[in-house]
Amino acid sequence: MRPIEVGVLGGTGMVGQHFVRFLQGHPWFKLTWLGASDRSSGKQYKDATAWRLEGDMPEEVQDIVVADCKTGSAPRLVFSAMDASVATEIEREFAQAGHIVVSNSRNHRMEMDVPLLVPEINAGHLGLIRVQQRNRGWTGMIVTNPNCSTVVLAMALAPLFPFGIERVFATTMQAVSGAGYPGVASMDIIGNVVPFIGGEEEKMQQETQKILGNLADGKVVPLAARVSAQCNRVAVTDGHLVAASVALTKKPSLSEVREAVNEFRGAPQQKNLPSAPAQPIVYTDQQDRPQPRRDAARDNGMAVTMGRLRQCPVLDLKFIACGHNAIRGAAGAAVLNAELMVSEGFLD
Amino acid sequence: MRPIEVGVLGGTGMVGQHFVRFLQGHPWFKLTWLGASDRSSGKQYKDATAWRLEGDMPEEVQDIVVADCKTGSAPRLVFSAMDASVATEIEREFAQAGHIVVSNSRNHRMEMDVPLLVPEINAGHLGLIRVQQRNRGWTGMIVTNPNCSTVVLAMALAPLFPFGIERVFATTMQAVSGAGYPGVASMDIIGNVVPFIGGEEEKMQQETQKILGNLADGKVVPLAARVSAQCNRVAVTDGHLVAASVALTKKPSLSEVREAVNEFRGAPQQKNLPSAPAQPIVYTDQQDRPQPRRDAARDNGMAVTMGRLRQCPVLDLKFIACGHNAIRGAAGAAVLNAELMVSEGFLD
Amino acid sequence: MRPIEVGVLGGTGMVGQHFVRFLQGHPWFKLTWLGASDRSSGKQYKDATAWRLEGDMPEEVQDIVVADCKTGSAPRLVFSAMDASVATEIEREFAQAGHIVVSNSRNHRMEMDVPLLVPEINAGHLGLIRVQQRNRGWTGMIVTNPNCSTVVLAMALAPLFPFGIERVFATTMQAVSGAGYPGVASMDIIGNVVPFIGGEEEKMQQETQKILGNLADGKVVPLAARVSAQCNRVAVTDGHLVAASVALTKKPSLSEVREAVNEFRGAPQQKNLPSAPAQPIVYTDQQDRPQPRRDAARDNGMAVTMGRLRQCPVLDLKFIACGHNAIRGAAGAAVLNAELMVSEGFLD
Amino acid sequence: MRPIEVGVLGGTGMVGQHFVRFLQGHPWFKLTWLGASDRSSGKQYKDATAWRLEGDMPEEVQDIVVADCKTGSAPRLVFSAMDASVATEIEREFAQAGHIVVSNSRNHRMEMDVPLLVPEINAGHLGLIRVQQRNRGWTGMIVTNPNCSTVVLAMALAPLFPFGIERVFATTMQAVSGAGYPGVASMDIIGNVVPFIGGEEEKMQQETQKILGNLADGKVVPLAARVSAQCNRVAVTDGHLVAASVALTKKPSLSEVREAVNEFRGAPQQKNLPSAPAQPIVYTDQQDRPQPRRDAARDNGMAVTMGRLRQCPVLDLKFIACGHNAIRGAAGAAVLNAELMVSEGFLD
Repeated sequence: MRPIEVGVLGGTGMVGQHFVRFLQGHPWFKLTWLGASDRSSGKQYKDATAWRLEGDMPEEVQDIVVADCKTGSAPRLVFSAMDASVATEIEREFAQAGHIVVSNSRNHRMEMDVPLLVPEINAGHLGLIRVQQRNRGWTGMIVTNPNCSTVVLAMALAPLFPFGIERVFATTMQAVSGAGYPGVASMDIIGNVVPFIGGEEEKMQQETQKILGNLADGKVVPLAARVSAQCNRVAVTDGHLVAASVALTKKPSLSEVREAVNEFRGAPQQKNLPSAPAQPIVYTDQQDRPQPRRDAARDNGMAVTMGRLRQCPVLDLKFIACGHNAIRGAAGAAVLNAELMVSEGFLD
Repeated sequence: MRPIEVGVLGGTGMVGQHFVRFLQGHPWFKLTWLGASDRSSGKQYKDATAWRLEGDMPEEVQDIVVADCKTGSAPRLVFSAMDASVATEIEREFAQAGHIVVSNSRNHRMEMDVPLLVPEINAGHLGLIRVQQRNRGWTGMIVTNPNCSTVVLAMALAPLFPFGIERVFATTMQAVSGAGYPGVASMDIIGNVVPFIGGEEEKMQQETQKILGNLADGKVVPLAARVSAQCNRVAVTDGHLVAASVALTKKPSLSEVREAVNEFRGAPQQKNLPSAPAQPIVYTDQQDRPQPRRDAARDNGMAVTMGRLRQCPVLDLKFIACGHNAIRGAAGAAVLNAELMVSEGFLD
Repeated sequence: MRPIEVGVLGGTGMVGQHFVRFLQGHPWFKLTWLGASDRSSGKQYKDATAWRLEGDMPEEVQDIVVADCKTGSAPRLVFSAMDASVATEIEREFAQAGHIVVSNSRNHRMEMDVPLLVPEINAGHLGLIRVQQRNRGWTGMIVTNPNCSTVVLAMALAPLFPFGIERVFATTMQAVSGAGYPGVASMDIIGNVVPFIGGEEEKMQQETQKILGNLADGKVVPLAARVSAQCNRVAVTDGHLVAASVALTKKPSLSEVREAVNEFRGAPQQKNLPSAPAQPIVYTDQQDRPQPRRDAARDNGMAVTMGRLRQCPVLDLKFIACGHNAIRGAAGAAVLNAELMVSEGFLD
Repeated sequence: MRPIEVGVLGGTGMVGQHFVRFLQGHPWFKLTWLGASDRSSGKQYKDATAWRLEGDMPEEVQDIVVADCKTGSAPRLVFSAMDASVATEIEREFAQAGHIVVSNSRNHRMEMDVPLLVPEINAGHLGLIRVQQRNRGWTGMIVTNPNCSTVVLAMALAPLFPFGIERVFATTMQAVSGAGYPGVASMDIIGNVVPFIGGEEEKMQQETQKILGNLADGKVVPLAARVSAQCNRVAVTDGHLVAASVALTKKPSLSEVREAVNEFRGAPQQKNLPSAPAQPIVYTDQQDRPQPRRDAARDNGMAVTMGRLRQCPVLDLKFIACGHNAIRGAAGAAVLNAELMVSEGFLD
């Protein structure tokens, strides 16, 4: 297979940097184009970008000349790491111009005809693309991945879906990298917890219902379960932790749930996609795990870890889930979406 | 009033040090006696103790010669900051010998005839003392305060009690000082969250029901509400945060609840006890508060701060509460208990 | 004495907030005026200011209407907490218009006719004021305090001055509050050290020489000692630590130095100024102290703590010093400067 | 080449776990034996060990039955990760019984006939082995690697050696993993710096002189340079930072030094040893680097990063160096030592 050229809109920001790093050595995709704001365009990536990730900027991208976020020179497949303040219009322009926009931005996630995709859970939601193209007269398309805290919860809930999810209570402890750069001020978070993240609780509640919803007649019927989220920022670099409790119709035993978790597989595993974790959700028996620093990077940051499954005096079961917000919750999620789309022929 | 001499069992440990500091300049109590293990007894406090709190060891205690944890020389009123591994027997010996033991240890909290006291909430539970003395043939007594995370939740729930508490969901983010010294290893908590604290969830669930229970016929009937706790350790020095959700029979409005919180007062305020916070629970309108580093020390560490009251899609209301685990949750709690007992004539 | 009305230029920022808090209950000064940028002026302080310090905004200032940073309505004595980007012009305008500007900004510190004042060390440098007023034709004046890391080093060196300071090596570990708000991004500092603070090393080197310099013939002759600084940012909220090594002409013994440190007193102590620490530099014998979290707040944040004095294989002696960057290194420093000026009749 | 079986003395502790992880997939060595204290021996490694590192315990070692730290069953080549309290005797017994003991423990480092080896710097010090075996009548041998902070300094100094090192000033900011587990109490380090690490400054001073010393007539003549260290513990998980200043006889320019650093290579590079970093010390031009969280893991944790080289007003040059204390400063250092010994025929 010849490599597929890809671009990143918003390539100089922190999420953009995660795309750059995650795409290094990708077997299908070759990063050849980076778009950014006027301030950066025309410069080489190494001069336009203050590299914030661990290690050095990959050599292969250092000399790429950053482009404007305009459609002319970009490859057909573009990832969007743009800030929400500018993503709406630019993503639409790219889709209209025939590009396949695989976006990490929140802007289009909740639109009726835009898939909010977690390939292990709702690969079938790609069926919305036809509706989207018909509605909007686009030759391209927009596909989105969830918010970085939603994906950890949704992944943990997916194996419980067959037991009938009725109510979900989720309290998050989220890493600062979820807020981008400069993001959270160090004065606010060192030795502290900030029990508020603007708009995050609403996103978790709505997105979870859409992801776990059913596509029928060209529409996603959201999961009927009530979801309540409390979102907190903690002094962690990478990795979101979710303390969840669920009410389930079928009242499974703890061992039935653990088994369902460990055996859960989805489209990426069946299709053996390059970025698919071998086991999407890994149950750990260690009583004090998962922990963000020790578990977020599991399987290259693409697997979610679950632990501490036990009875809940208020609902039925409670547990802890942990995932890498910048990988499984952003760059890796979008790349996996694109891989699924390639495998389903959307780029043919 | 002549000062009442008091002692501290387990005075060299970290909770003991909090007692020492909290009792400095107390208008009623004078700390004259410090008991500790064999290793320390016979030494001056300054030589027996590695001072771990901010600032220097108070001068007044530096030269006190540490005693054995035996009843001979101790004053009638003793606070217990002893480790759970030794508290059961020693506290009983002191109570049997006529001492008033005001304990922060967990050992006797859940015994049927031992008050688990939060003076703002259940001052009447001191009625158990007569039962305790009759049952055990003691001339002294044991009174306890709750676990450091329980007290934050119980205080926040107390103003909601009149609305009918049916179910409670609480996820904690707890400071490392709650684990004593050396407590949590820094390798476990820097840039991390540990989603497990041994025995803590059970304590929060049971103690909350007892504290909010009703004393009748010499017994405490626990609150019938179901309580579910998820306890997490975060990289915070002092101050426990609780993200809670509650179901209430009477479905009050948000403003009714805020008003109930701000107007809530209890015995310590009515009796104007020296360590009583002017307002036990303070509601804050700042959308990203309370926060442990900025709010735990409110009113000398004795007031709990509540914020972010809002509707909950699963139960009725959710909110955040924050309190100082080492003061309101330990040393200050016990001292307030003793003040209540003095004011009710238990020392006469 | 009638209270002296004072104002704060740049009152809504984080240093401004430290001034607001530090001036609460001040026996001489009454804060009646707060100046800020256009965006804030005309609003009440409580609406113009996102309060970032521990606890709540003091009630007394909440309703003060924030003014422009113009001279019309301001009291004669104004503290400057302005950002360096705007301080130069505004401070000059105020001084020209007859105001006494006691500035924490760096802009005028190194000018020949501006005192860089640490009242314990160089109170006599106020003699520069006459030169300044003559040079510039001002009826007012500008007085400055040092950079927040410089003051810790300068205070620690002051008692060593009589032994003949020849060379100084200082490596700092500085709190994030020294960078203001939002300042250091949490992504940069959680679980990390940033070994660079723009301009800081040069400031420490030059300011230290000026502070310890000799005023003669209307000029400060800088201390001839060579000073080398390495400045690092660490994950600490408040409190700068300095690991220093010095070469001294007179080769004092360790005990002579400890004695000199503990006996050191300056003008603020002799004049009993309200914000003067009883003992400006406190030597601690605890082998692992001073530490920022445990020692920075000593004596209301105005005393510097020194420890670990020992022989240095390269120079003569090495030691650790710690001080509160936001108090002794900013707001408290400026207030102490103003107190000295009041006591010396500059406001008469 | 057939794999060489190796063992780890003290395999269940945190340094031992680093050996286990570092040896996974090693092309020459196969870990087949783990020794630990009585408490652990006889159990499978997975039951004897609370795994503290990121990710899960490697599968290959989980079922190894932990042995006593006795010579009977151990392979010829053993790494020692033992606590200093027990290492002296056990390491000697193993060497006497013919084992090649490659030790990370401090116990034998400063003995006259024991190599303190950094293969890039002093591979020739292996010549001490003959002296050691003759002196002690051993058929085996003990080789040691430096303390985890020393190695960062020594590596950074090695390229400067040709310029004539006269004096060295080093202030460290060290990660908590350097103290083992549980090591530093979280109460001591969250939001804090502890400016004391027992014995560390002496180790840095003496070990640096020995490493850079000259082997002649069966003795190492220590480098004559005076070295002064100030050691501090900071809230970092992995990676020691050293702020250093040096006086050099030949007064090289900054660019000469940078070039010397980047071109520096030693025996591991020449021999292409499996764990050798391609470039032992990497100079970075980013003005705020190296940083522990972003640079310690360079080249699998085996390369040291240097930056901020500039003139020093007191000595000649100052710079920052950073290395991974648990890899380059412990497990990786010992494995590289063993690789060097294999390549020099010590195992033939």
